[in-house]
Amino acid sequence: MADKSEKTKARLPRGFADRSAEDIRAVEKMMATIRSVYELYGFEPADQPLIEYTDALGKFLPDQDRPNEGVFSFQDDDDQWLSLRYDLTAPTARFVAENFERLPKPYRSYRSGWVFRNEKPGPGRFRQFMQFDADTIGTPGVAADAEMAMMMADVMEALGIKRGDYVIRVNNRKVLDGVLEAIGLGGEENAGRRLTVLRAIDKLDKLGPDGVRLLLGPGRWDGGKEGEGDFAKGAGLNDTQAQAVLMATARNVQAGQDASVSGNAVYQGGVGELATIEALVRAAGYAEDRIAMDRSVVRGLEYYTGPVFEAELLAEIPNEDGQIVRFGSVGGGGRYDGLVSRFRGEPVPATGFSIGVSRLMTALKNLGKLDSADVIAPIVVLVMDKDTESLGRYQKMVGELRAAGIRSEMYLGGAGMKAQLKYADRRGCPIAVIQGGDERAKGELQIKDLIEGARMSAEITDNAEWRASRPAQVTVAEGELVAEVKKILAAQAADRVKGGASRPSSP
Amino acid sequence: MADKSEKTKARLPRGFADRSAEDIRAVEKMMATIRSVYELYGFEPADQPLIEYTDALGKFLPDQDRPNEGVFSFQDDDDQWLSLRYDLTAPTARFVAENFERLPKPYRSYRSGWVFRNEKPGPGRFRQFMQFDADTIGTPGVAADAEMAMMMADVMEALGIKRGDYVIRVNNRKVLDGVLEAIGLGGEENAGRRLTVLRAIDKLDKLGPDGVRLLLGPGRWDGGKEGEGDFAKGAGLNDTQAQAVLMATARNVQAGQDASVSGNAVYQGGVGELATIEALVRAAGYAEDRIAMDRSVVRGLEYYTGPVFEAELLAEIPNEDGQIVRFGSVGGGGRYDGLVSRFRGEPVPATGFSIGVSRLMTALKNLGKLDSADVIAPIVVLVMDKDTESLGRYQKMVGELRAAGIRSEMYLGGAGMKAQLKYADRRGCPIAVIQGGDERAKGELQIKDLIEGARMSAEITDNAEWRASRPAQVTVAEGELVAEVKKILAAQAADRVKGGASRPSSP
Repeated sequence: MADKSEKTKARLPRGFADRSAEDIRAVEKMMATIRSVYELYGFEPADQPLIEYTDALGKFLPDQDRPNEGVFSFQDDDDQWLSLRYDLTAPTARFVAENFERLPKPYRSYRSGWVFRNEKPGPGRFRQFMQFDADTIGTPGVAADAEMAMMMADVMEALGIKRGDYVIRVNNRKVLDGVLEAIGLGGEENAGRRLTVLRAIDKLDKLGPDGVRLLLGPGRWDGGKEGEGDFAKGAGLNDTQAQAVLMATARNVQAGQDASVSGNAVYQGGVGELATIEALVRAAGYAEDRIAMDRSVVRGLEYYTGPVFEAELLAEIPNEDGQIVRFGSVGGGGRYDGLVSRFRGEPVPATGFSIGVSRLMTALKNLGKLDSADVIAPIVVLVMDKDTESLGRYQKMVGELRAAGIRSEMYLGGAGMKAQLKYADRRGCPIAVIQGGDERAKGELQIKDLIEGARMSAEITDNAEWRASRPAQVTVAEGELVAEVKKILAAQAADRVKGGASRPSSP
Repeated sequence: MADKSEKTKARLPRGFADRSAEDIRAVEKMMATIRSVYELYGFEPADQPLIEYTDALGKFLPDQDRPNEGVFSFQDDDDQWLSLRYDLTAPTARFVAENFERLPKPYRSYRSGWVFRNEKPGPGRFRQFMQFDADTIGTPGVAADAEMAMMMADVMEALGIKRGDYVIRVNNRKVLDGVLEAIGLGGEENAGRRLTVLRAIDKLDKLGPDGVRLLLGPGRWDGGKEGEGDFAKGAGLNDTQAQAVLMATARNVQAGQDASVSGNAVYQGGVGELATIEALVRAAGYAEDRIAMDRSVVRGLEYYTGPVFEAELLAEIPNEDGQIVRFGSVGGGGRYDGLVSRFRGEPVPATGFSIGVSRLMTALKNLGKLDSADVIAPIVVLVMDKDTESLGRYQKMVGELRAAGIRSEMYLGGAGMKAQLKYADRRGCPIAVIQGGDERAKGELQIKDLIEGARMSAEITDNAEWRASRPAQVTVAEGELVAEVKKILAAQAADRVKGGASRPSSP
């Protein structure tokens, strides 16, 4: 054993988190719901490893201009660079390219898993987080994009989010590409400036048009005033150019408002695809309150080439600072026709959607839509005598309960009866089973109803709901253990239903 | 789009694998079963991140003598070293140490997830694989170890592995420690040699006593003969010492056989704990065919301090070379009293068990115990007309099917009818729905039973099982879509039951 002086410090690296039992159970349940919708739509599960060759992942991270920034990378023993995946789309593209011949086309798959960003962590911003994606690969038709938007709307409702509390916003990257071409920002030599414009538009919700105008033009101080925070270099557009961009990417573009760019063919192509998607989703019965066309959606990722989507929660929820704000995006996606192609050297059009699992869970928690798990804590058989023979006897009781499907355990610590009951309390155990020497001599057991016990020891003020209390402790013959435990669990379940149903709140 | 000459090669790094839909579904099902047993025993889910500080993970990997070998590591931007976890036990120890005060004690938790080994990959040997662990932390009593062994036996049977086809072997690391102390290998200065002995004994199954005797003594050539393969340096024991080790770690030690070491207190302590565990599991009804005491079990990990367990499948299964062999270990564990303590500087005894998920799945597959998933492939609505209005109509049909809970999709590729039916075949789709211009004019649909169609086009040789065939294609009114699809699915399900039940094999 290490002495105190040389012990290792137990701490998590910044930006990583341990998850609680409650969170794990809630996420499992949420993901099962998402999975059931993806399955209903005919998608099949897929899974890629967490590590890929760095060059296979490509350099598509948002807000990262330098190669490999934002990614955890390390060299293999043959000196090739490996990276932890930063999303699920890049590995999917690698997989499809590698197995192209044997896959049905279109290839429809879904996958969930951890992704990693080597970024500065912040509140609610982790370096490891979970995504849950669906992708249709091998079709250029925007019907596939329309389906993505509809499926995401169905996922939201399957999770219990009411109509009106969410919206799937749809736009087309070609709209912005066309605008940029029309104002003279086309061509390879302007790729960097286009990216700056893209990221500026993506900040519309956060900074408003005036802030974005600065990012489109000369640049902007992070703090909002000169000298405050870092200076973000702008795209260098003049006022006319910036105005054209802002007009064409306004949430609802009115007729004629986009006159300065409407002659551009790429722009018109994007607008046309958007109209087709709108017609398809409306025909399928998805109205504007579920799927809205919105020119301001661009998505921060560089690799999108056509339709882009964003799932937004409209519900107003307190943020970390206690302000009531719209929760915002819980997922998004779009068409990425270049990602598989860059491996194959032939066009392989693709579209997909990604849900931010942790973020969505936080939202559902805030909306009260996340069933706190209905798993009952185990029955505890207390250990009164610690000799091997007695332990064997307690173990047998636990075995009988488990054989009847009742979650239970024998207390395994070294503590006395008081500490054992405290342990049961801490775990939220519903029942404790006790057999000391006296009971054993008579072939009996004590069974403590810990929930009734807690209720009785609290003051009962609500007379309307008053009821005769059950005994908090009964003594039964050894052979009655399972039957009696079942009886108490049933009574506790009935109380929970009653308590949850119609108890009037105290005046 | 990249041209062919500059395209990136789509390939997986060595030792990593993509998983198929079938494998993912099978693993999900298997893990749900394991989880239900862990829950029944009163364990709670827990989850730690995949990345930890390198020093927090420690240096406990088997077969790795140099620091950090075997682990994927990289430096954080503050120059601290991070590593991908190589098992789930080390992160669990870090978590418990960091949150010690607020956790109930004993702390009973289970967790599953990917772990990583930066090793040379080989057949069936991956650099990313999944483990599923359970741990009881905070109790020194061997009742906790006995429970681990019983729980693992219950897991095996819950997975459908018959009694007699598996065994949980139990030993105690103190037995070997005592032997080594008795033959003069105690003390800090002999730590390296003790590790060499440990790893030699761990190879008993593979090399037999003669091979192990060489590893205990002068060393051994990997190929079995002088000059063949690499030379593995031995522990340098003399013949008497090696004999004492081999006698005391024989599978079944007879009375008196361990005379040369039986005076050692540590050895006697280990033997005594083993006897207690045996008494506890027998009292709970677990006979020797489920949990066997076995002195030859040592486990390769350095950090075990007391009882060790191994879950072994006894079933004989063809290996990669087609030889019929015992499948062997699918999991193991033991007591690791030092792992949490090294953070806390106070004793925190702990015991746990780890299941190798991928390995167990391979075993279940070979045993025919893995239900190939009963998920039905989606119904496909073919796209005969590609205009937006028609697409909207097909989309609506799919919507109706989905609203009835029927897995379905509209064909989203660009191909003609023949290619669409080929796609349906490749996916294993049970039904295709077709509406061209003619049907549409009459308000009708064609529904193709693709399974019956395939059956009819194959020769029917089995007269005993001959039955009148259903029509492979029907035409119904548009409003009949859901009802007719349900009817065909039900008929197909009935055929599957019949086919699986009593069809006599052809002579």
